[in-house]
Amino acid sequence: MKLRDLGEFPFLHRLRERLPMDHRVLLGVGDDCAAVALPGTTVITTDAMIEEVHFRREWTTLATLGEKAFAINASDVIAMGGEPTFALLSLGVPQDTEVEDLDAFFDGFLRAANACRATLIGGNMSAAPCLMISVTLLGKTSHGVITRAGAKVGDDVYVTGTLGDAALGLRMLQEGRIDSSVEHVKERFLCPTIRFSVSRELAAQHLVHAMIDVSDGLVQDLGHLCDASHVGAVVDAPALPMSLAYQTVLGKNHWETALTGGEDYELLFSVAREQRKTIAQLAQTSHCPITRIGHIVSRSEGLTVRGQDGSLLKLARSGFDHFRQG
Amino acid sequence: MKLRDLGEFPFLHRLRERLPMDHRVLLGVGDDCAAVALPGTTVITTDAMIEEVHFRREWTTLATLGEKAFAINASDVIAMGGEPTFALLSLGVPQDTEVEDLDAFFDGFLRAANACRATLIGGNMSAAPCLMISVTLLGKTSHGVITRAGAKVGDDVYVTGTLGDAALGLRMLQEGRIDSSVEHVKERFLCPTIRFSVSRELAAQHLVHAMIDVSDGLVQDLGHLCDASHVGAVVDAPALPMSLAYQTVLGKNHWETALTGGEDYELLFSVAREQRKTIAQLAQTSHCPITRIGHIVSRSEGLTVRGQDGSLLKLARSGFDHFRQG
Repeated sequence: MKLRDLGEFPFLHRLRERLPMDHRVLLGVGDDCAAVALPGTTVITTDAMIEEVHFRREWTTLATLGEKAFAINASDVIAMGGEPTFALLSLGVPQDTEVEDLDAFFDGFLRAANACRATLIGGNMSAAPCLMISVTLLGKTSHGVITRAGAKVGDDVYVTGTLGDAALGLRMLQEGRIDSSVEHVKERFLCPTIRFSVSRELAAQHLVHAMIDVSDGLVQDLGHLCDASHVGAVVDAPALPMSLAYQTVLGKNHWETALTGGEDYELLFSVAREQRKTIAQLAQTSHCPITRIGHIVSRSEGLTVRGQDGSLLKLARSGFDHFRQG
Repeated sequence: MKLRDLGEFPFLHRLRERLPMDHRVLLGVGDDCAAVALPGTTVITTDAMIEEVHFRREWTTLATLGEKAFAINASDVIAMGGEPTFALLSLGVPQDTEVEDLDAFFDGFLRAANACRATLIGGNMSAAPCLMISVTLLGKTSHGVITRAGAKVGDDVYVTGTLGDAALGLRMLQEGRIDSSVEHVKERFLCPTIRFSVSRELAAQHLVHAMIDVSDGLVQDLGHLCDASHVGAVVDAPALPMSLAYQTVLGKNHWETALTGGEDYELLFSVAREQRKTIAQLAQTSHCPITRIGHIVSRSEGLTVRGQDGSLLKLARSGFDHFRQG
């Protein structure tokens, strides 16, 4: 059935029936606003995905798209040391959209939300020329807010997971590559892994001086962290964590994509040198690779990337800007 | 200058410099999330405006568009008896957008926000095939939350301002009418008047049993209020408040547009009969017309509209649904 045959209000009515009960919600979907009590400090973010800009329908299922829409916002919340609590969803939907597709989108979105005990409390839906998804996510911070602005000279710089997979996956999707060696990186683009447990431990143990998620590319996001902290940084390119699939396709010494590719949604953070053992333990207990990729230097030294022999690498671009490309 | 020549990050940097200081904001625009303390009960809404769906660029200035984007969300917050506090803005922008146009949009948005002491604390901007604006607005509720679900049999039903102007204004814009008699209704569509002071007084005096804003049309929104309250209602069409411009263009006895036209963003609420004098006083002190247009009946009596002689009116449609039209 097409959405225009069912109608907006019947669809929203059906959706409401599917939402789980949450005693924290005073008033959920269905009034002019939602109402919630938010003790302590609340972190809030909003991020959008637009058809033909961020994704193509033929690349992904609607369920995976729903998961990613939640995940990219959750990534911002955990990068502050927060835990996702409540979500709002603003949807632009073409009128000939199949109700089943929209159901699948909500399946994925709600599954991802439920997995971290976040609840959808509000939203809106309107007609649009293409699928447009804008999510607002709130989070609670039980252990304080971790910002980008706290890195100290001498800190180690760490990143979770592997880098460059999503950018490579996007390229493989754009080029229509279908061999098995590239499936992993495609999946990494289509739905990132959000590092909930690492963030929770880093926050609870007050280990981190500064943190950001890698959404626009390592160099660019490390640049944001350095700017906010008034420091510089050195990145050792050979230390960058790259997946087997990445190394198979691009080669072991191709660092450019790992340095500049967007949408990995890994955590990038700075920690005092003295904590190396603690971080190594945390990687083990959270079952998530955490790699030391460089260190913080003074602001005057800027942000540099070093290659195999310690020589400075020059990058053609630092990362992704929606309006300045190439 | 085009946005693609300036770039996303330089634009956002310039924007940050323009944002006023707000001591309530622990962390504003510029990190992965904003951080705020939100004591008491918070109300939250999100609403979107999409080019060619909700507006055309040639109808409006970007400043007015910015004002409206804030206003339609503020309308939801005050319909709960809330006061806007913090806003997030998710923007999809064509790459060839002029920086000056985007500046004007933010001028209008920030002017509307400042007027009710709300602060922009976060957002995101990405490329898009057309201009897409999604706003999330938070509000505080000092006097409790007013929902749709509290109307009692015997209550009077009131509406602020006049009805049908925005729908008529939209039609005049679509038809390209430019005579002076229709300017008022065009303006009502392009930027609604939000009834802050009425809402504040209604909330402070605990006068209202149920409230909603008229965004999809009076009959449809009153229907939502009735559904949530498990009641019915009678609307007296001749009592509907219609502007002089409306009456000039459509005639004194044309009620259809006033009954079903969307986007007026007036407040619709039910109050005990005993409060008629109080409401009349409130209309005077707030300098806002408040008109009694009907009353609440039992659920079994449904929602009916009566004409001049008390006869039942039949409506071709009840209001606006994005996906079922005509």
